[in-house]
Amino acid sequence: MAENIQSRPEIGVGVIGAGYMGKAYSIAFNAVNATFPLTANARLEMLATMEHEDAEGRARSWGYKRATRNWRELIEDPAVDVVAVCTPTFMHQEMAMAAIRAGKHVICEKPIALDAASARAMADAAEAAGVVNLVGYNYARNPAAQLARQMIQAGELGDIVSFRGTHVEDFLADPQAGISWRQQKDFSSRAGALGDLASHIVNLAHYLCGPISRVVGDRQVVHAQRPDANGNLLPVENDDQASFLMRFANGAMGSIEASRVALGRKMGLTFEVTGTRGSLYFTQERMAELQFYSGSDDPARSGFRTILIGPQHPDYGHFCLGDGHGIGFNDMVTIEMRDLLEAISAGRPLWSTFRDACHTADVVEAVLRSCDSGHWQTLE
Amino acid sequence: MAENIQSRPEIGVGVIGAGYMGKAYSIAFNAVNATFPLTANARLEMLATMEHEDAEGRARSWGYKRATRNWRELIEDPAVDVVAVCTPTFMHQEMAMAAIRAGKHVICEKPIALDAASARAMADAAEAAGVVNLVGYNYARNPAAQLARQMIQAGELGDIVSFRGTHVEDFLADPQAGISWRQQKDFSSRAGALGDLASHIVNLAHYLCGPISRVVGDRQVVHAQRPDANGNLLPVENDDQASFLMRFANGAMGSIEASRVALGRKMGLTFEVTGTRGSLYFTQERMAELQFYSGSDDPARSGFRTILIGPQHPDYGHFCLGDGHGIGFNDMVTIEMRDLLEAISAGRPLWSTFRDACHTADVVEAVLRSCDSGHWQTLE
Amino acid sequence: MAENIQSRPEIGVGVIGAGYMGKAYSIAFNAVNATFPLTANARLEMLATMEHEDAEGRARSWGYKRATRNWRELIEDPAVDVVAVCTPTFMHQEMAMAAIRAGKHVICEKPIALDAASARAMADAAEAAGVVNLVGYNYARNPAAQLARQMIQAGELGDIVSFRGTHVEDFLADPQAGISWRQQKDFSSRAGALGDLASHIVNLAHYLCGPISRVVGDRQVVHAQRPDANGNLLPVENDDQASFLMRFANGAMGSIEASRVALGRKMGLTFEVTGTRGSLYFTQERMAELQFYSGSDDPARSGFRTILIGPQHPDYGHFCLGDGHGIGFNDMVTIEMRDLLEAISAGRPLWSTFRDACHTADVVEAVLRSCDSGHWQTLE
Amino acid sequence: MAENIQSRPEIGVGVIGAGYMGKAYSIAFNAVNATFPLTANARLEMLATMEHEDAEGRARSWGYKRATRNWRELIEDPAVDVVAVCTPTFMHQEMAMAAIRAGKHVICEKPIALDAASARAMADAAEAAGVVNLVGYNYARNPAAQLARQMIQAGELGDIVSFRGTHVEDFLADPQAGISWRQQKDFSSRAGALGDLASHIVNLAHYLCGPISRVVGDRQVVHAQRPDANGNLLPVENDDQASFLMRFANGAMGSIEASRVALGRKMGLTFEVTGTRGSLYFTQERMAELQFYSGSDDPARSGFRTILIGPQHPDYGHFCLGDGHGIGFNDMVTIEMRDLLEAISAGRPLWSTFRDACHTADVVEAVLRSCDSGHWQTLE
Repeated sequence: MAENIQSRPEIGVGVIGAGYMGKAYSIAFNAVNATFPLTANARLEMLATMEHEDAEGRARSWGYKRATRNWRELIEDPAVDVVAVCTPTFMHQEMAMAAIRAGKHVICEKPIALDAASARAMADAAEAAGVVNLVGYNYARNPAAQLARQMIQAGELGDIVSFRGTHVEDFLADPQAGISWRQQKDFSSRAGALGDLASHIVNLAHYLCGPISRVVGDRQVVHAQRPDANGNLLPVENDDQASFLMRFANGAMGSIEASRVALGRKMGLTFEVTGTRGSLYFTQERMAELQFYSGSDDPARSGFRTILIGPQHPDYGHFCLGDGHGIGFNDMVTIEMRDLLEAISAGRPLWSTFRDACHTADVVEAVLRSCDSGHWQTLE
Repeated sequence: MAENIQSRPEIGVGVIGAGYMGKAYSIAFNAVNATFPLTANARLEMLATMEHEDAEGRARSWGYKRATRNWRELIEDPAVDVVAVCTPTFMHQEMAMAAIRAGKHVICEKPIALDAASARAMADAAEAAGVVNLVGYNYARNPAAQLARQMIQAGELGDIVSFRGTHVEDFLADPQAGISWRQQKDFSSRAGALGDLASHIVNLAHYLCGPISRVVGDRQVVHAQRPDANGNLLPVENDDQASFLMRFANGAMGSIEASRVALGRKMGLTFEVTGTRGSLYFTQERMAELQFYSGSDDPARSGFRTILIGPQHPDYGHFCLGDGHGIGFNDMVTIEMRDLLEAISAGRPLWSTFRDACHTADVVEAVLRSCDSGHWQTLE
Repeated sequence: MAENIQSRPEIGVGVIGAGYMGKAYSIAFNAVNATFPLTANARLEMLATMEHEDAEGRARSWGYKRATRNWRELIEDPAVDVVAVCTPTFMHQEMAMAAIRAGKHVICEKPIALDAASARAMADAAEAAGVVNLVGYNYARNPAAQLARQMIQAGELGDIVSFRGTHVEDFLADPQAGISWRQQKDFSSRAGALGDLASHIVNLAHYLCGPISRVVGDRQVVHAQRPDANGNLLPVENDDQASFLMRFANGAMGSIEASRVALGRKMGLTFEVTGTRGSLYFTQERMAELQFYSGSDDPARSGFRTILIGPQHPDYGHFCLGDGHGIGFNDMVTIEMRDLLEAISAGRPLWSTFRDACHTADVVEAVLRSCDSGHWQTLE
Repeated sequence: MAENIQSRPEIGVGVIGAGYMGKAYSIAFNAVNATFPLTANARLEMLATMEHEDAEGRARSWGYKRATRNWRELIEDPAVDVVAVCTPTFMHQEMAMAAIRAGKHVICEKPIALDAASARAMADAAEAAGVVNLVGYNYARNPAAQLARQMIQAGELGDIVSFRGTHVEDFLADPQAGISWRQQKDFSSRAGALGDLASHIVNLAHYLCGPISRVVGDRQVVHAQRPDANGNLLPVENDDQASFLMRFANGAMGSIEASRVALGRKMGLTFEVTGTRGSLYFTQERMAELQFYSGSDDPARSGFRTILIGPQHPDYGHFCLGDGHGIGFNDMVTIEMRDLLEAISAGRPLWSTFRDACHTADVVEAVLRSCDSGHWQTLE
């Protein structure tokens, strides 16, 4: 006869924000228990949203036990063990700090804060409180990105010679596309595409090739004004596109380009890492594959190989047993939540912590300074 | 103050089988409520598995309330509204028929049965009982495949001139890869790659271009023997690769190739549909894109376009709001479960029903007959 | 002081036909001496054209010493050592036979003749006369195709398991595209796309995988009528598309598809050769690369490699010393002319001789018979 | 009866240098008369080479009337109307200046000179003498590049927002690859990959998007020493890789990267041009195609289109009448020679003149200054 199941230890999850990433996190928290052999399950405890009329409806749809319109209530709730901050950037610091003060573990959307100083304050607080802390640079969780890192760490590429990264999209290529908080410096940052998009690829550059030591950059507002919901034209307060050169601490050269007006590029998070023994190319538009050139192949038989991600690569096999069947954006978020839960439950290390995100923010700020000064800027 | 959430109507789900597809279904049943605005939620009621020692452990991990080692108990359980049959092919008929007799809705893995006659008996029974019935030809649920169908139905391709499909993988390319039930005709079918793989692309051909009226084919065992777990060589009883030509009822020509020994192809489910006004190309290895050639483009500016699937295409926007961020294998299964739940709850039509699967099985059998006879075989 | 150069031995070339291929041959005969270290140079002796008003103008532009409107005069001319037949198919036999009777070496455009019996008569005559004879299946001269053959012959692919070929173009996808001799069976053949296009890929299949032993096919006129130059609708007398299955003498399975109405495909000569140890994929639309999957790669690092053709591959280095700089259609024709000249001057063996072309014609005819009969047809 | 052909007016060609580009030019001068309807034909008059023992043998193979080991003799020869300088960079100035003084037209390999001042002196002299002058930036002659320029000039891309270019190869990726004149600053320039490779893509950037107004860059020697022919290690005197940011006079942002150690990239001359209405992507590794994204497509049907170059695009139809059959490196050189001959014979304008090459050299020097200073450098 069928018996009732004794559940594993559970970690109560509270999510603040029910927009784009709030939903993605919620799907992931629903899927993560079934996907991975966890030491503790996620329990969807509470959803907080101020923006959406039907908070309860969303919470119900997304599997939460409870809903609230008061995010402080969520943070204070004893059944909530970990707080996910999925709100616009300008709210991150207040919410994360409150959660930390309440002794909660925190996962926060990227970029972590409006500036590097705020980021550092948050990292300091989280570390002092000893809570697990994670920033949602989820592209590093893609099995293809994990594989890239494994290969680099194992020396399969030899010494890294150069890194070329982009994060180019076209969601604002249309000059008539309406303004949002992302184009306003008090709500997002004075770094536009640089803060919102380049930060992803900076984070990946750190993940793959280590610290960046100096930068010089350029940035530009392409469309100076955009209509608000009433059709009034408001100024765009941060860059639509940005580029910079960099050197890594290991001496390798690099460049990064970010754009939200790159007509035709939908999810152009790309990297090419060149080493003395091998090279890699990746684009998120084809997220389930990694291009690898091996310098040890017979020169007459060599070429970039399209490695289709499968069970022999990191994490994929938990989703699907068949090679190359495909893995999606939300699967990366599910991996991220696995990391979060296992860090809480089993002390497993994480990428990227608040501290890692500070380093990302530092690079963004150094690029801003170089744009202002016209000179290279050194990072400590 | 946060209030407890009243849940939506629920549909109790019982899954038989805890292997490859049993897990995929389970992840999907966990994710579906949060992903889609459903009229009724899935409730993971019970998992039945005979094969796995720790049935309860699997059930617990995968979010089920209960576990059993007796699949008949699952079928008879009053809290189970829909039965998912995720077992080897030879068990499908007995389990699905039992579920139908118990008045349960049924979703069954593909191929539906060992032969077309069994498939027809199952479809007849399901229709007579008035239960919702679905066969897991999940590739038709890919947003890219749905988009292809929309475009064809809307006439964007004009008249269909030809269809070329493949389902080629290499999981048995290694002659030393061990034998499994899939290579044994009593457990799988006398159609090997033809039944296991070609059936997927036949099903898609039906979905996209309508009925197939005649076929002529060829098939082959490439590696005659394979070792069992003890290293004893056992005969491979069905085809490693198969090909056939076909005509559709609408007059279009077509061809299909299937292989499980196609070294290098990991998930080579591909189709090229050529019409008088446009053409499409798809491969599951790049499942989040569809290639489209429009005959109305300026000839000096024309070429196959890589359409990256995004929120403007079927179903994608429920997973992610960003264009081209990627969608995975399990997302297709989640869509399938949405279809199942909405068919039960709201009478929404389904692809592919048991009846649709009969037509697929008919094509497979006609190919078998043509391989035996060396002649074209006509389908009624 | 600069000295006059003693020229190498020369071979006098006469070309009949000043259309598409007549020009391509002429460019190649101009380029071949400089490209390759030859034992004898080409000397462009005479161009014969009936169709073009300004025969002399063409001849002058193309570097010939003389022009004529009488092709028999060209064949009889003592300074012409080798005759190139670049006229519509129905003229090939008469011209080639006349050239052979005059003791001239012959290169003839493909398909060699209206039917296999004519082809055989031509091959018999050429062999009896002991003249060098070549048919313009130039795609086999692509360095990528030569590399494919080298790899297969060296066993790098292991045993060949399957071959999938296409030659699909869209030059007649527009139903209003005017009729030409290619659609008329007395001038082309009763095999349309099958004779004009499939013959290329059949020839390549032979080149790569050896003799074909049996076939079963299907074919179709898609647009029954086309306008002539005066706008009168004339019947299309041969197939717009054709497909067939085949077995090679070595047991491998295969399929071929040809179309002149494959909207979107400009030069879709493609092949995928699957072996037990490796696989290849090629498309003429990206003619300077070959995709190679090696079964000996670490499974976690394996994938199809894009080999860019370079100096380490056949013939490329004579054109360019830089890797992957690109090679074009006319370069293949230049290679063909090198083969021709070296066969004449140094007895070097050739692909494809008239005899090889007979085997291609035999396959085409066997497919025609199978289309008529609905059965497999065996080739001796 | 066949008549002797009256030849068109002829232009006597003398080529200095019989290496990589000397051969490419020679093949092109042989092919150009037959390929294009010219107003004057090339006549291969003389080849000068100091390096190769068998100068006459080379000259004979390549179709020249005469050979010399004294390049001044070639320049002075009255039958030589145009002098082609295909020698290492450090010899360009002396040879080109001598040719100009002799009143000869000149085509010179790139980069035009060791530094911008020398380039300017050459351009001034050529213009003062009124001779046709051309620098071999042949990638701008690719039909795909010409098409890109046509589209941009016609406004099909709207306003240009950004340009990202690379010229990355791996011919020195191997640290043991021997040293050559290209790594020595007296024979090549103190700009290594920057001068040899980046100059190509700078030239293309000018061709496509107009003048560059400021730059900031970085560069690096990756492998400090290389063996000479005797195995002695010599210092590498110029950069193995270089990158820079730039602004165009029209305000668009840009970046360029060059490398000769980019393992895996064989001919990575690439550009992505983003506009407000459309975008383009090109790589020389697939030189016969251009990727085009049109902002006017239905968003649900939009994507980068692979335009296969065909007769409807610039110059291709002179090589081949079939769409997408492929065009190669040497074909670009043939187009360049057509330009040269028609400039001489018919006054047709040219890209790129010595003056255009000065602008390219100016950018390279500005990047060098910015690498030295760490600041942006402005170009007049």
